[in-house]
Amino acid sequence: MRIRVINGPNLNLLGTREPDIYGAETLADIERSLRERGQELQVSVDCFQSNHEGELVDAIQSCRDQFDGLILNAAGYSHTSVAIRDALLAAELPTVEVHLTNLARREDFRRRTLTADVAIGQINGFGAYGYELALAALVNHLNR
Amino acid sequence: MRIRVINGPNLNLLGTREPDIYGAETLADIERSLRERGQELQVSVDCFQSNHEGELVDAIQSCRDQFDGLILNAAGYSHTSVAIRDALLAAELPTVEVHLTNLARREDFRRRTLTADVAIGQINGFGAYGYELALAALVNHLNR
Amino acid sequence: MRIRVINGPNLNLLGTREPDIYGAETLADIERSLRERGQELQVSVDCFQSNHEGELVDAIQSCRDQFDGLILNAAGYSHTSVAIRDALLAAELPTVEVHLTNLARREDFRRRTLTADVAIGQINGFGAYGYELALAALVNHLNR
Amino acid sequence: MRIRVINGPNLNLLGTREPDIYGAETLADIERSLRERGQELQVSVDCFQSNHEGELVDAIQSCRDQFDGLILNAAGYSHTSVAIRDALLAAELPTVEVHLTNLARREDFRRRTLTADVAIGQINGFGAYGYELALAALVNHLNR
Amino acid sequence: MRIRVINGPNLNLLGTREPDIYGAETLADIERSLRERGQELQVSVDCFQSNHEGELVDAIQSCRDQFDGLILNAAGYSHTSVAIRDALLAAELPTVEVHLTNLARREDFRRRTLTADVAIGQINGFGAYGYELALAALVNHLNR
Amino acid sequence: MRIRVINGPNLNLLGTREPDIYGAETLADIERSLRERGQELQVSVDCFQSNHEGELVDAIQSCRDQFDGLILNAAGYSHTSVAIRDALLAAELPTVEVHLTNLARREDFRRRTLTADVAIGQINGFGAYGYELALAALVNHLNR
Amino acid sequence: MRIRVINGPNLNLLGTREPDIYGAETLADIERSLRERGQELQVSVDCFQSNHEGELVDAIQSCRDQFDGLILNAAGYSHTSVAIRDALLAAELPTVEVHLTNLARREDFRRRTLTADVAIGQINGFGAYGYELALAALVNHLNR
Amino acid sequence: MRIRVINGPNLNLLGTREPDIYGAETLADIERSLRERGQELQVSVDCFQSNHEGELVDAIQSCRDQFDGLILNAAGYSHTSVAIRDALLAAELPTVEVHLTNLARREDFRRRTLTADVAIGQINGFGAYGYELALAALVNHLNR
Amino acid sequence: MRIRVINGPNLNLLGTREPDIYGAETLADIERSLRERGQELQVSVDCFQSNHEGELVDAIQSCRDQFDGLILNAAGYSHTSVAIRDALLAAELPTVEVHLTNLARREDFRRRTLTADVAIGQINGFGAYGYELALAALVNHLNR
Amino acid sequence: MRIRVINGPNLNLLGTREPDIYGAETLADIERSLRERGQELQVSVDCFQSNHEGELVDAIQSCRDQFDGLILNAAGYSHTSVAIRDALLAAELPTVEVHLTNLARREDFRRRTLTADVAIGQINGFGAYGYELALAALVNHLNR
Amino acid sequence: MRIRVINGPNLNLLGTREPDIYGAETLADIERSLRERGQELQVSVDCFQSNHEGELVDAIQSCRDQFDGLILNAAGYSHTSVAIRDALLAAELPTVEVHLTNLARREDFRRRTLTADVAIGQINGFGAYGYELALAALVNHLNR
Amino acid sequence: MRIRVINGPNLNLLGTREPDIYGAETLADIERSLRERGQELQVSVDCFQSNHEGELVDAIQSCRDQFDGLILNAAGYSHTSVAIRDALLAAELPTVEVHLTNLARREDFRRRTLTADVAIGQINGFGAYGYELALAALVNHLNR
Repeated sequence: MRIRVINGPNLNLLGTREPDIYGAETLADIERSLRERGQELQVSVDCFQSNHEGELVDAIQSCRDQFDGLILNAAGYSHTSVAIRDALLAAELPTVEVHLTNLARREDFRRRTLTADVAIGQINGFGAYGYELALAALVNHLNR
Repeated sequence: MRIRVINGPNLNLLGTREPDIYGAETLADIERSLRERGQELQVSVDCFQSNHEGELVDAIQSCRDQFDGLILNAAGYSHTSVAIRDALLAAELPTVEVHLTNLARREDFRRRTLTADVAIGQINGFGAYGYELALAALVNHLNR
Repeated sequence: MRIRVINGPNLNLLGTREPDIYGAETLADIERSLRERGQELQVSVDCFQSNHEGELVDAIQSCRDQFDGLILNAAGYSHTSVAIRDALLAAELPTVEVHLTNLARREDFRRRTLTADVAIGQINGFGAYGYELALAALVNHLNR
Repeated sequence: MRIRVINGPNLNLLGTREPDIYGAETLADIERSLRERGQELQVSVDCFQSNHEGELVDAIQSCRDQFDGLILNAAGYSHTSVAIRDALLAAELPTVEVHLTNLARREDFRRRTLTADVAIGQINGFGAYGYELALAALVNHLNR
Repeated sequence: MRIRVINGPNLNLLGTREPDIYGAETLADIERSLRERGQELQVSVDCFQSNHEGELVDAIQSCRDQFDGLILNAAGYSHTSVAIRDALLAAELPTVEVHLTNLARREDFRRRTLTADVAIGQINGFGAYGYELALAALVNHLNR
Repeated sequence: MRIRVINGPNLNLLGTREPDIYGAETLADIERSLRERGQELQVSVDCFQSNHEGELVDAIQSCRDQFDGLILNAAGYSHTSVAIRDALLAAELPTVEVHLTNLARREDFRRRTLTADVAIGQINGFGAYGYELALAALVNHLNR
Repeated sequence: MRIRVINGPNLNLLGTREPDIYGAETLADIERSLRERGQELQVSVDCFQSNHEGELVDAIQSCRDQFDGLILNAAGYSHTSVAIRDALLAAELPTVEVHLTNLARREDFRRRTLTADVAIGQINGFGAYGYELALAALVNHLNR
Repeated sequence: MRIRVINGPNLNLLGTREPDIYGAETLADIERSLRERGQELQVSVDCFQSNHEGELVDAIQSCRDQFDGLILNAAGYSHTSVAIRDALLAAELPTVEVHLTNLARREDFRRRTLTADVAIGQINGFGAYGYELALAALVNHLNR
Repeated sequence: MRIRVINGPNLNLLGTREPDIYGAETLADIERSLRERGQELQVSVDCFQSNHEGELVDAIQSCRDQFDGLILNAAGYSHTSVAIRDALLAAELPTVEVHLTNLARREDFRRRTLTADVAIGQINGFGAYGYELALAALVNHLNR
Repeated sequence: MRIRVINGPNLNLLGTREPDIYGAETLADIERSLRERGQELQVSVDCFQSNHEGELVDAIQSCRDQFDGLILNAAGYSHTSVAIRDALLAAELPTVEVHLTNLARREDFRRRTLTADVAIGQINGFGAYGYELALAALVNHLNR
Repeated sequence: MRIRVINGPNLNLLGTREPDIYGAETLADIERSLRERGQELQVSVDCFQSNHEGELVDAIQSCRDQFDGLILNAAGYSHTSVAIRDALLAAELPTVEVHLTNLARREDFRRRTLTADVAIGQINGFGAYGYELALAALVNHLNR
Repeated sequence: MRIRVINGPNLNLLGTREPDIYGAETLADIERSLRERGQELQVSVDCFQSNHEGELVDAIQSCRDQFDGLILNAAGYSHTSVAIRDALLAAELPTVEVHLTNLARREDFRRRTLTADVAIGQINGFGAYGYELALAALVNHLNR
């Protein structure tokens, strides 16, 4: 079972970016934890991050026959990118949407994501630990 | 560590109610799994369900000094109950909000919940397994 | 053929409550007429009223295998209760929605009911006689 | 007691037009049933249909001293015709509004009708049988 | 100077239609007064009324080379008819919009007219006398 | 018969202010014409202008027992002044609302006036001549 | 003169619930003060609290012939309960609406209450002292 | 292959009506071109125009068994006519919607057409040439 | 303790202005009662009224070091005056907002006041007696 | 005559991406057809596709002196990209907007495109054939 | 070159009014700095402040032939005063709009100003220094 | 003191792109002026432009420890890019937002920028000179 974790803009700054909002773990920390947790669950975990919407679209498209499922935190693009939504539809892979923060406590424009209804489900507000929950959720879904 | 799981209206019918939307597991199945999973994590899990908004308010209020955290699926009351929101604020306990279905794929009036911003976070769309994720998320939160 | 008539909050006061709006017949009068009309149509008519949303949810749930159809006037809960809507979906019974008054002449918040699209149809504005029409409509539907 | 039944645009196609939505009975069938039912109730029933908004306005105006009540299904004009609404006000006759389908399950623009608050009440969603209910409701209203 | 007065749906009923709202003068009375007032002002006044939107469009179109200006009370069509608006634009004649009643005191949907910004101006609320004001306004406009 | 004409902010600049929108006549010209026209109609015409909302409120209040009717062009205050609306209600005098321009062709915020439904009617778009129409309308109203 | 004070959900927790928002006085303290203040004013004061919407509806209904006026703080139900509004209309008793906090400083959904226009008036933002003001206001109203 | 071209209100004035917006070709020119172009494509082209909504409904209804596809420019009725939409649904014929102008550059109320989602597609903004494109599109669609 | 009572536009007409809405007491009556009630409570009460928004701003500004609290009924300016809101913020004095009428029963534009969230609280709907309640509320607040 | 065809995100997947919505032809097929069709019309056709908004902006900018017209399907960026709109304005080239699907049948957020009013016109809903129509429309436009 | 600086309500309190929002400089300080800076730039700077909307209108009107440009901070009136907007249009002078605070961080009702689109541009958020920037911007504009 | 100037999409075309809207100066001209002006103010000025949202995000992120402040004209991305907003928050540098044009005179979708409330302030409408004002504002801010 091969799973890709795709992170969007500004998540490369985790740990330094507004740590009281986003937490002190870096993206490298999170990705390492996910790969370790993946080994326990016997799934391979591949990680990708970009600040560029187009690269995220490319990355999602290329998953189509290479992976069995996606974990996606499209960050700022979650709320505006029809292109990423369309790429998810084209990739036809089960996707779990993760957000580090509880979007309901943020600005109004973060309330809605364009990817929500094309994902299996959302996990919001649990910080870095949310990725582990997402991995568990995706593996559970793929095993059914 | 004591955790209460509170389920709202119509969740007593799980397994028979629109099983293609809500899944085939009964509420008793879910509660049993949660208690077992709680034993593994060394937390006690107490379960409550009611179709009555007022009983849910009472139940949340009574958790104040009896429990360390809440898992809440307020179901149909999630979208309209200021009283439940106020009870959560009064109980002052960390709460994880769970929904069996991906609310973004449902009717418009299910998009917003009045409890979202008073909870730690939300887990939506993973069916019965979402409660296990919620338990993990809550224990992880309490351990920090 | 067994039919249940479920009436919501404040309908217990019919006859005394704002009689120029709601008419002079009491709920007992209406229920008696319906049972008599039921006998003519050879259907049994069972009546229930509550001011409590949760009791209405319970009552609708319990109809599932006990009745063939519902006549529902959820009164004030019609406009806000997702829980009652969900109970109707869970009960999986043909339902006719009745309102004594013409909702289009009332306050704005009475224009929309959350049960409208899960019912077969609506009958609004004909006072106590609307229940007889609803019974006829439901029997006609069940006979097809 | 003289009653006029006025049907609006495209109802002349009943039976052939989207029969899974509108049913298999033709308008002639419905009108015949209504006249028969009228005989039982000792009221004369006169039927009119037009696809032309102006002809519907003319027809409603001409009822003023010729009829005692109206049954109106203005179909597509229900949602946009201020002219028909004004004709109803000018005719000063009790009117029952009928719709074959449950408007709450249709497109958003069918939710509101401009005639709803100038009618006595509405009967929606019971197909061709809705006209019989409307006739009963109107006769009951006129007899009070 | 030739002026056409075009009246829309239900204005043929003036005098009998809701006289406390629309006044006791008939349309014939108003048209006679306008023709007399026209003679004083040395303009010919031609009057047309229809309940049919299409006939109003035809009538406005045909004014193009036959008349110097229009007085229009499109009544119920004022609020919904893009076709009448387009006919006015095609006719390229100065138009005064008249309404018997003060639209600001009526239902919300009467607040906006689709013809307001293609007319020279509006005269609302002065009953039958509004037509005389409109005639004066139009003649004044044409004389400049 | 005593009539007061009350003009609001910036109307003191008529003739110099954006003459292609508001016309070349000065306020003095308009007031002189109105007084002359008043003499013909045997009504006295008193004129007042202020750029100050409070002075307009004072002026309207003071009309209560001094005048028989008002002509009001509250200009920029028309769209925002609840105070002027309340003064009109307190003065209890028939009022004709005038605007030089066709408000439907202006900015969106000029579409609605807070005085529209407390006036008898509106006359919009006829420039300086609109005041003469307003005077005629008011005298006609008072004579009935 | 008999007055009933009805308090809604979570007000049983006053004193412990978010004391910096709601104050340190308990509901028992408030009720005692009100009864004492009632004695001074020679009115009997009866107090009721429930977290259940249906019980509040029952309680309001039962006041009809037992009391002369109501003081109501429906708390979280104020903003959503059509049933409580309808019960107030049915009870036909003068009602003063009280809120401990200044609703204009709270979440958006607390701005509007469904009971506001069926009460005599509102007293918001004065904490526990607001009930004393309400009692004074109600007695003053009943004495006129 | 038989195709009907149906044009709505004011299109009879093409060539004279606002030629800088709608172009200098008359409707007769357009219809002649379409028939010629039809001959090349070996389809018969039948043309109809009316200013009357009801006649357009009649015309669309009558196509049901007489034609294989429709080209529709409902002009001003496009934005408001539920009746024409319903007639298209009843006719069950593939329809191409054409507009001479680019609706996105026009008034706000022209942005949405009620026929858009019941047509195959839209062609907007290419003037008279748009009809040729529509014919090509419809023939291409029917040939698949 | 020095308290200023500031009344806005048209309140100088109390007693004569729409007495069935605003009551028969004059502003002088109310101010006299307040001063007497002030003496009982051992606070000095100073009263000011103006129809001019700017004078109200001046008056509020000048309270800054002269008074301990404000009672404000900004009347028509309550709903539109950012300037008065800013003056209150600048004066930094506890303020009680009073309205004679129950704003929830008035026009829509009276629902929101721009001063509500900068005041301690509101007292609406109790007529002239509301000022006494406001005085009590303010003194109670200042004493804490 | 040189024409550039610019395709946006996910159109590189045509043929594999949701073929029941977008059709079975690949982008290479479409581009080949367009070049062939261009040869018949004696125009050169140059094709570009990117998933990157910035590259699309670059590509449009670079057309300014190199091409005579554009055919643009900005796909997911159509609805959100002000940058592409601005690039079109800067390029000052006639542009035809194409969409494979009928946007009126898709999600709400696809209803409006930010490029619609800066293009000559739109062609929606005709699948791959829409590009041929667009080419014809653009050549026709350039030839005038 | 003569420039007038016009400040609106509550700006007379600068330095004492909410200094953490508006800064510690008084209006006199700002005006002195502006006059000095004017001398350097060889423009005369005239300053005016009022809390009265009408006086601001008067002041703007009187600039017409006396000044070459305006710097305007209409403060609380910026968001509601059509009268000030109209005065600016009548004065026909280039105007720079200044706000001390960043309006995007304030209450919602401060987001839009009615003067924004009749000014050359806006300078927001730079405190007292914003006036110097405005002066530079205006002089630069006048010199072109 | 090191300052970075970041320009967004299509600003590379300044001077050729719609010069009557955006002015005749090229971006190179503006950047040269800014560097010269920087030398006078003894700050180094570094300039960057990209049409790619992701490159702008990268560029803003990389400023974090390299620069003391930012001048940002995100052009078309200003209105839609949550990613750029988040990058600004992550960079934690004082930022001045500049727009060449007065956004209040442009299309509606340009009214709001997602960066406005995370910047110190905005300078809109002064063309190329706006950058000089922004530099002055930023230096003034950094010096405090």
